Amino acid sequence: MRLSAAARRLLESEALAHVVTINPDGTPQVAIVWVGLEGDEIVAGHLDVRQQKVRNIRRDPRVALSIETDVTNPLGLREHLVVHGRARITEGGAAELLQRLAASYLGPDVRFPPMDDPPPGVVTRITVERIGGVGDWSEPGAD
Amino acid sequence: MRLSAAARRLLESEALAHVVTINPDGTPQVAIVWVGLEGDEIVAGHLDVRQQKVRNIRRDPRVALSIETDVTNPLGLREHLVVHGRARITEGGAAELLQRLAASYLGPDVRFPPMDDPPPGVVTRITVERIGGVGDWSEPGAD
Repeated sequence: MRLSAAARRLLESEALAHVVTINPDGTPQVAIVWVGLEGDEIVAGHLDVRQQKVRNIRRDPRVALSIETDVTNPLGLREHLVVHGRARITEGGAAELLQRLAASYLGPDVRFPPMDDPPPGVVTRITVERIGGVGDWSEPGAD
Repeated sequence: MRLSAAARRLLESEALAHVVTINPDGTPQVAIVWVGLEGDEIVAGHLDVRQQKVRNIRRDPRVALSIETDVTNPLGLREHLVVHGRARITEGGAAELLQRLAASYLGPDVRFPPMDDPPPGVVTRITVERIGGVGDWSEPGAD
């Protein structure tokens, strides 16, 4: 599905994503990662391809992620975005993506990963299937 | 398991918990909630007992939660706590717990829930089985 402008702004900001995958035994696995957008896909880079979340996605593509905003609604609850979707892994490109995301997360001139010849790694690409959370994440005027 | 002093401080702070449960179809469900501690159990209150996360926990107690800190490590990565555990639901007590947690999350004198005669609700109680994340969440000297 298409993302609203508000959801896109948050996904391209310096806010961290709590990404949930499913372990082989059915228990949830959660990791906090940098994310960005490529078209309507949410992307994250992993230099270490042995990470549990990467192995989980290769086996079961069903994922969810949540991102906090710094906006508190009139009830006192923090607005946040929840995305349910399907992820796929593509080979290589992690270092280039992390360097791009570092501009949001660390600052425009920070080198990341801070090493020569980083491994190619993998990129997670999430197709959004359902949006939830607290806040107005629909397109303005699309109600 | 016992929680370290650092983990306890974060769990009792105004930082929000991203709590993950498992839907009937095996997909992950994630919600951002207020949490606190009662002994070594992590507690959260729910006025609406029909919430998906409450129904999920009644069926499958395996949960995970993640909490961001505002500390960035030397690599530029935000420290955070990840807890894997088992949850149980106890009946009633949600409004009293939410009022106690509101002191951390909203301020010492804020009334929450902001209604007369709130429903009894339920309390989620999570027993910690495994700690992860980025940061030193072990007891000082317990390595």
